[in-house]
Amino acid sequence: MSFLDRIAACNNADLSRFVPFRAGGALVGHIHRDRVAELAPFTEVFVADAGGIALAPALDTAEKRTRAVDAALRALRQRGVVKGWRDERYPVHPLDGGPMLLAMERAAVPHFGVGANGVHMNGFVRRGDGLHLWVARRAQDKPTYPGMLDNTVAGGQPISIGLKENLIKECREEAGIPRAIAERAQPVGTVSYVFEEEATLKPDVQYCFDLEMPADFTPRNTDGEIGEFMLWPIERVAETVRDSAAFKFNCNLVIIDFLVRHGLIPPEHPDYVAICRGLRR
Amino acid sequence: MSFLDRIAACNNADLSRFVPFRAGGALVGHIHRDRVAELAPFTEVFVADAGGIALAPALDTAEKRTRAVDAALRALRQRGVVKGWRDERYPVHPLDGGPMLLAMERAAVPHFGVGANGVHMNGFVRRGDGLHLWVARRAQDKPTYPGMLDNTVAGGQPISIGLKENLIKECREEAGIPRAIAERAQPVGTVSYVFEEEATLKPDVQYCFDLEMPADFTPRNTDGEIGEFMLWPIERVAETVRDSAAFKFNCNLVIIDFLVRHGLIPPEHPDYVAICRGLRR
Repeated sequence: MSFLDRIAACNNADLSRFVPFRAGGALVGHIHRDRVAELAPFTEVFVADAGGIALAPALDTAEKRTRAVDAALRALRQRGVVKGWRDERYPVHPLDGGPMLLAMERAAVPHFGVGANGVHMNGFVRRGDGLHLWVARRAQDKPTYPGMLDNTVAGGQPISIGLKENLIKECREEAGIPRAIAERAQPVGTVSYVFEEEATLKPDVQYCFDLEMPADFTPRNTDGEIGEFMLWPIERVAETVRDSAAFKFNCNLVIIDFLVRHGLIPPEHPDYVAICRGLRR
Repeated sequence: MSFLDRIAACNNADLSRFVPFRAGGALVGHIHRDRVAELAPFTEVFVADAGGIALAPALDTAEKRTRAVDAALRALRQRGVVKGWRDERYPVHPLDGGPMLLAMERAAVPHFGVGANGVHMNGFVRRGDGLHLWVARRAQDKPTYPGMLDNTVAGGQPISIGLKENLIKECREEAGIPRAIAERAQPVGTVSYVFEEEATLKPDVQYCFDLEMPADFTPRNTDGEIGEFMLWPIERVAETVRDSAAFKFNCNLVIIDFLVRHGLIPPEHPDYVAICRGLRR
């Protein structure tokens, strides 16, 4: 197995299985063909449009679209179609950029192949015996990817809060990292991918941060989402990413990006250029 | 003007102006339509092939291809078509990867749209008054891009030497940086682009390095290629990149990548995701 295998696993989507999803005239996502029938009952919200699905033209403001889609999604939740309702809304923008066209319940976003953002942070420690990374293991009762390895801190990016403030909040909730330390986190770029899973599509962008953590600080979860934290030598982290699928799919990209930026995957690596290109689709 | 303008300027190629160039059955580059006639006299080297140009099938080893192409290029040099002969050969690989199919005089590589590699290093200094970057100005008598601003150290990547060793050599020649300091340069990834200029094509990859330099060290050119070195506050560097075309085209990408990785272009920047994606085409 290889770093490129991890990148390929995050870019496994076959768009021929999806139809376009439009809102306000713009392409905002993709819906799996198997899901189109689920939307048929909501004739005042979702309409057939040029081989795909569009929001009804009468929904001509972001507020109207948000309200109409929310009502349909709550009905789909009742029917057990939308699972893991979060009561948290993500913005929906044109796929090629532009103003927000509506807001959508987070749990439904991948059903529509709408792009989502998140913040991911690698918390590392420089020790006499080398660079170490704090690896998180997701709680066994977490609805998504239970028990899998994760970045030190990671979370979705909601509408209502800035990126850095969101990261500071997640640092506190997920790892007990006080604001004074979390504020030192340095933005270092993005990773992006198009991931298909169980008739959902995630064309997502994750904002990456590095945080050099004090050697005497131990992360401690406070919200029940993380089962344990482990301080691993970076070589063990790199091998685990390269040789296994133990990390949640997208966390692999965040770690590979860290390894490249810190010179831990050397430029002589035969896949170096493909790795650098592959991290941002 | 904007950072995205600098990225767009490096990705200005219109491939409809070029025809494919094949060697050993593989696509290895692209030749501008205006240059096809230049190759017509060399019927034993270049042949018409599926709407493009290929090396003659009889040239069935890397050695034969290298020798035949070299003879043709020396004739083109005599006629003034290939200018700035370097007597330095670059490897030619299939564009989608694979073993070397021939080696080609460096000055001719962009005539064939063959990908080239280089090493680019940002030498920076952390001072009490903030991060500073050593900016180089190319000599006024340099054949390419005279007088333009450049990264602290940069050079093409020849066949005969490893990436890090090449960087150490360029550090010494271009900036008088001794090996003991140059060895600390950290590989941090690649930038890549497809640049068209005067009927040539550069689908190039540059390997990027960061070097934190001692505050009391002043770079000093030894090979005549650099006119002067200037230690600029990073804000001035960022503004110059954003608001002007004062830097040689590809050096802008190396600096933008530096600004992203060091958190100096913040994730709240409206173009952040497009910038991160745009640096590696």
